[in-house]
This record gives sequence, structure tokens and C-alpha cells, in this order.
Amino acid sequence: MLAVHLENGEVRVRQVRKPRRASGFALIRLIYGGICNTDLELQRGYYGFSGTPGHEFVGEVVEADRADLIGQRVVGEINLACGQCDWCGRSLERHCPKRTVLGIVKHPGAFRQFLTLPEQNLHIVPKTVTNKQAVFVEPLAAACEILEQVRIPQGAPVAVLGDGKLGLLIAQVLHAHGAEVMHFGRHPSKLRISRDAGIETTLAKSLPMQAYDWVVDATGSAEGLQQAVGMTRPRGTLILKSTVHGLVPVNTAPVIVNELTLVGSRCGPFAPALRLLKSGKVRVDALISGVMPLSEARAAFARAAEKGVLKVLLSNRLG
Amino acid sequence: MLAVHLENGEVRVRQVRKPRRASGFALIRLIYGGICNTDLELQRGYYGFSGTPGHEFVGEVVEADRADLIGQRVVGEINLACGQCDWCGRSLERHCPKRTVLGIVKHPGAFRQFLTLPEQNLHIVPKTVTNKQAVFVEPLAAACEILEQVRIPQGAPVAVLGDGKLGLLIAQVLHAHGAEVMHFGRHPSKLRISRDAGIETTLAKSLPMQAYDWVVDATGSAEGLQQAVGMTRPRGTLILKSTVHGLVPVNTAPVIVNELTLVGSRCGPFAPALRLLKSGKVRVDALISGVMPLSEARAAFARAAEKGVLKVLLSNRLG
Repeated sequence: MLAVHLENGEVRVRQVRKPRRASGFALIRLIYGGICNTDLELQRGYYGFSGTPGHEFVGEVVEADRADLIGQRVVGEINLACGQCDWCGRSLERHCPKRTVLGIVKHPGAFRQFLTLPEQNLHIVPKTVTNKQAVFVEPLAAACEILEQVRIPQGAPVAVLGDGKLGLLIAQVLHAHGAEVMHFGRHPSKLRISRDAGIETTLAKSLPMQAYDWVVDATGSAEGLQQAVGMTRPRGTLILKSTVHGLVPVNTAPVIVNELTLVGSRCGPFAPALRLLKSGKVRVDALISGVMPLSEARAAFARAAEKGVLKVLLSNRLG
Repeated sequence: MLAVHLENGEVRVRQVRKPRRASGFALIRLIYGGICNTDLELQRGYYGFSGTPGHEFVGEVVEADRADLIGQRVVGEINLACGQCDWCGRSLERHCPKRTVLGIVKHPGAFRQFLTLPEQNLHIVPKTVTNKQAVFVEPLAAACEILEQVRIPQGAPVAVLGDGKLGLLIAQVLHAHGAEVMHFGRHPSKLRISRDAGIETTLAKSLPMQAYDWVVDATGSAEGLQQAVGMTRPRGTLILKSTVHGLVPVNTAPVIVNELTLVGSRCGPFAPALRLLKSGKVRVDALISGVMPLSEARAAFARAAEKGVLKVLLSNRLG
């Protein structure tokens, strides 16, 4: 079968042996994979990664212990937890210190024709959710994580900074939650997706200072983080959704003087994300910039890294 | 009367006119002032400050509208708020955007023989609290602020990083609150103060990683902040009590991957601080490194800036 392989900044597509599933694991035939900024960072060698990337996917179960899974379309939680530790006991498998992570840490990723994941990680995709929409469950879950961590009141004004893929999903999730979202970005074509979803948008030229009790930084830039700090009102909460590689220069003075709360936020629960897709409250189709076959992963990675491009999907149909 | 004056890095003592109190203000004769790290930063010109510094003091009211205040020993909240805005309405005068701040922002400080403050800012010092102890109410209130912002459960292990003046007060406040404090520092002589108060201490050589749900950074250093991030368990809370001047290089990845909550924390309420001093649950006498007359402020500032020195008090008795 085909598998994408990253090494020393190169994206290659290799012929490899089909994986064998262990007990408790399902064997899944890939339908679509989604290229995430993290995949581009893995390519750039930020985490010393080599191997098969990919953690956003929808697939079909071909083998499993549980008979009811076979033939089902599924998406899968990406953290493979030990199931034994305190974190797992508290349903915080996403923080299990022994976890491996699909396509990121010590578990081969989804950018290959067949992959394996523990059956307990799988969620069956509702019939009304298309394959292309289902690929967004993982990043949408990351957007939903915000609401697992903080209580944003109905009607509360929230500033979302950044109009990349994650920023667009966050704006829709918070809008669906009932917050009064103002989406700040630099790309009219991307902000348009939020506007079409009924969200107010502003081109981020001059940003309002100390204007919001709730701010989400999804800019992925050091400058964006600093701006987000400046936009947060005293005693307000700033949710950090995007990492910036390496050391980021931060002015801690306004954080302390204004007694801000900064909340780091990563992966989230799949169930609410699936509900949002099923209900149509979050729409993702406009975020797809292109679909390319797995065999053209190299070109697909290059396309995903281009300016103005949003989600590029890898399709498991031989091109 | 004598007043300390900072300008271009110089500490001078000048003869100036005794201030006149406005209506609603008290005129206070200084007894002791305490030199804080912020005063040393003002001296270094970090905030373009020139004028009379000093925001830690105990004094005696000599004139006031309220007759019951006259002759009383008082300490004073340092933020002079407008009393009209939303923040003031929510009892968050400390965040009033129109506030001036005693000895820091547009209100002459306490390092002079007589000062003025709004009567509503004053707290009468209980008889059993000595003058030298009372000077610590302001920084002790800053330590108490932590418990206004976050709920640390009884018996919860808390790491306090930094054995400077603020770190020592924080360790005692959290210990008195019932937390299981481990105080990390670099100075055996300072950590001894915490040990004498019944607090466990460790010389900060190799710090435990991801070991505490609650961490307080009072190191005042960029390195300390980074270490504090590393010591916080996933989903844990890191309270930022000390600013580092300028831009601090921060690795945001562990904050986001481990979903940490960072809480900036500044000034606090005086009432709990006074209660802690009155009850004897917090002891501050060992933090006093020296007492010098106001007229020798220049030497006192130099002494306060020496390594290993804790609190230096300025006394309003002509030396």
C-alpha cells in the first residue's frame, strides 16, 4: 500500500506493507486525510519527526474486534492513552503522560492507505455528514476544547484573532455557542467564510485595546499573541490556541498589571464536534482549498503551504 | 519637610512644602516606608518615572474629614480610583482605568514626611501590629491577591518559586491558607525564614518537571518563569506574581500542549493582609534587613539593591 513519509524536510510516497491490527485496534481504510499546519511543521523538522504524518482523517473500518464497527465510516481521537493512569481515570486521556499520538508521537499517521487505531478512539460518522466534512472533526474538536476549559457566557463579546483554518473553526464554534464573536483577520477572502456564517468580521489593521473580556489567539504568530494580550480587558481571559515555534518574546507586564488569565488549549472532544457538523451549525465545506490523491502528497503539502490556501485534503483514490 | 525625589537614576532628598489635603483626603505623617523592588525599578528609569516614590508605608493621620481617623495609625491602598466607572462599581478599584497610584502613577509617593491619600483608601492598624510589621501590609496584600483570583484547595501541594521578599510573603500566605507549600529558592539564608514559619523548602538546583497543579512564580526572572512553566502539571495553574522588565522569551508550546492556565496577579486587598498580621499567622519581622532615616534615602536605596538584602525601611525620624 502507499504511505506518505516525511524525512529531512522531504515528502515522499512509499510502498509499504499494510499494517496488522493488534487486539483492541481497528484496521481502517483511509478515505480522506486533512493536512494541518502541524503536518507542515513536522515536515520542517521542528520536532525531529520522521515517519508517516496525518492526524485528521475519515476512513472505513475493515477489521475490528467489535463487529458493529466493521464497514462503518469513522473518525478517530488522536491520543492513544495507557488507560491506567490518573489522567485516563479522569477522562483526560489527552494528557496521559504515556500517550502516543497519531501521526505526531510514535504512532504512524493517517496519510496512508490503511491505518490502525484503538477501537475506543473511534467515532462513527453520522450519515448526513459527508466524508469531506468529517475530516474536520479533529480540528473542530480542538476549537470545541475552548468551551471545555472556560465558561463563556451567552451573548458575551469574544474577539477571535487569526483567519486561518483553526481561527475560522473557532469563530463558528463560539458563534454557535451563542457568543457575540468579532473575528479579526488579515485576509478578506478568508473572513468572508465567517461572514457567510453570520459572524461579524474586521480586517485587523488597528486593533482595539483592552476591549474584550474574552480573546482567542489563533494567529500562530508572536505579533498576534502580543496583540491579543493588548486587546484583553483587565481581569479578562485570553485563550492560546496556536503555538509559535521556539521562544516567543512576550511582554509580561500587561498580563500581570491587568491580571489577565491565559489559557493554553489543545486537542478537544470529538462528540460535540460531530454534533455541530451534524446539526449544520458549523459549516466547513468553504474551508476546502483542494483535494489531491495520496500519491501526490508532495504537491499537496506544497499547496497547503501556499499563502491564502486553507485545507488541502488527501484522497485515497489512486490518482 | 523632607521628600525623596527620583530623577535620571538619582535618589535625592529635598526640602519641599508640606502637601495640603483635598476634601475627602487625609494628611498623614509618615512613620515608616518600605523600599520595594518596584521602587528600585522606578529609580532605574524603567517607567520614565520622576518624582517621589513609595507605596509601602505606615503613618499617623494628622488631618482628615473623618474625625475618627485623626491620630490613628493607618496603612493605605495604593490605587486612587475614580469611584464612578464600572470597575469601581464592581469593587475592582485596583483596575479603574482612570486611577492614579501612590508613588507610581501621578500621585506623589510615601517617601516623604507627610503624604495624602483618600480617606476611603485607609485602614486602621490593629494595636497588636507593630509599625514595622504594618509596612508589610501592601506587599502582603499582593500575596493575598492570589487567593482572590484562584481557589487553591486545602492541602493542595503548591510550589512557590523565588525567595525574595514577595516569594517569602506568598509562601507564608499560602501556608496559612492550608496549602502544602514547597518553597524553592536559591538563598539558604532567605529560605530559612520560610522554614522557621514551618514551610518546607528546597534549594532550587534541579527542579521537578510537571510536578505541581499549582505553581507561583515570584522569581522576577525570565529563567524562573520558564522553569515555573516546566514545573506545572498538565491542566495546572501558574500564577505570575513578578514582572520581568521588557520582552521575556517564553516557550508557548508547553503552555498549550499541557493546557496550562497562567494567571497574572498584582495588588490585593488590605483587609485579609491585616488579619494575617494580627493573628500572627504571617510573620514579617525576619524580612527586615535594615532601618534608615528618610534623610539617608540614597544609601537606603543602595542597600535595598544589594544581593541578599530583603526589606529596607525608611524611618521618619531625622537621623
